Amino acid sequence: MKMNKYIIPHKGKVTKEDRQKLKGHKSVVLWFTGLSGSGKSTIAHALEEALYERKIHTYILDGDNVRTGLNKDLGFTPEDRKENIRRLGEVAKLFVDAGIIVMVAAISPYKSDRSFVRNLLEPGEFIEIYVKCPLEICESRDPKGLYKKARQGVIKNFTGIDAPYEEPENPEIVIESDKESVEEAVNKIIRYLEEKKIIPKEENKNA
Amino acid sequence: MKMNKYIIPHKGKVTKEDRQKLKGHKSVVLWFTGLSGSGKSTIAHALEEALYERKIHTYILDGDNVRTGLNKDLGFTPEDRKENIRRLGEVAKLFVDAGIIVMVAAISPYKSDRSFVRNLLEPGEFIEIYVKCPLEICESRDPKGLYKKARQGVIKNFTGIDAPYEEPENPEIVIESDKESVEEAVNKIIRYLEEKKIIPKEENKNA
Repeated sequence: MKMNKYIIPHKGKVTKEDRQKLKGHKSVVLWFTGLSGSGKSTIAHALEEALYERKIHTYILDGDNVRTGLNKDLGFTPEDRKENIRRLGEVAKLFVDAGIIVMVAAISPYKSDRSFVRNLLEPGEFIEIYVKCPLEICESRDPKGLYKKARQGVIKNFTGIDAPYEEPENPEIVIESDKESVEEAVNKIIRYLEEKKIIPKEENKNA
Repeated sequence: MKMNKYIIPHKGKVTKEDRQKLKGHKSVVLWFTGLSGSGKSTIAHALEEALYERKIHTYILDGDNVRTGLNKDLGFTPEDRKENIRRLGEVAKLFVDAGIIVMVAAISPYKSDRSFVRNLLEPGEFIEIYVKCPLEICESRDPKGLYKKARQGVIKNFTGIDAPYEEPENPEIVIESDKESVEEAVNKIIRYLEEKKIIPKEENKNA
């Protein structure tokens, strides 16, 4: 902490730009929306792995860490879904401010809720990724057995069964997860991030 | 994304330890508690600046970015204060999982609320910093004019005036902000982080 007394040491608060500079890339929200079983979390985790290899600083907000913690007081009524998305959006904004590329994997079925989050952020910081997959295929995957319970009426207000999913109109990226592999999806998102100069292009590794 | 097909590429999810490794240090919560005007935010911001110079990845959660966003639906009744701290704790936990040293500057007057947050985290991850300062001095500083309004009865439930502040019993660090300078406080916290091997010791810069 020794400082030259003729140099003003106080440059002011550390900013979002400072934190991005330390990390070597910009920070954005990658918002994965789509039906349960469409592959949002799978793609997000594979993407995180690929970005980690490139020393990109990421974090994933999804049901696993948010529904069991911050949002454990919320259910699945339209009001609670709205509050769930509001809080996810506000927390994602904090992560962007911290310089992190934050991925949110949430069904987020309502356009108005996704728009709300987009408007919380600066232009270009909210990247909506629509993980598109026909309901029949999501239902046949049924990784958590939720569709079965929804059909039996054990779970109410289940998106695609007895609650609506409003498709994005102008998402930045569309992944058709019944046609594209996880690796193809990851590559598509990485190319987008490179083109928008959010992350640096990978150096040519050929020796 | 080209991979040698004889090497198993899928190492599984990126973990908290992976993210810490990328950043070059461990992640913890530095929880600043104390009266309004005690200097919590000032010390946190000065500490962030000093840590940034050492390439430590930090973020600050305080009234400026949380009360106006995530927690803008909350007031200052005991119930709302409790929920305010619960959410701050849950968000701080996410930042620790992301590999960040997260500082929370919040009056957080109730022991039970601070204990709740401590119990959300792994042992050693919650570092309680009591910014201790006599009420009369905080009140004479009154940086936001809040004590004046509380004395006039314009603000109700103001900590130290008509709402209690429960002192920490075993905080990891105590800063007596009426006796120690901001620089001394910052150095004390940095020494603690070094001793606990949360951040690396600074390399000797003598040429």
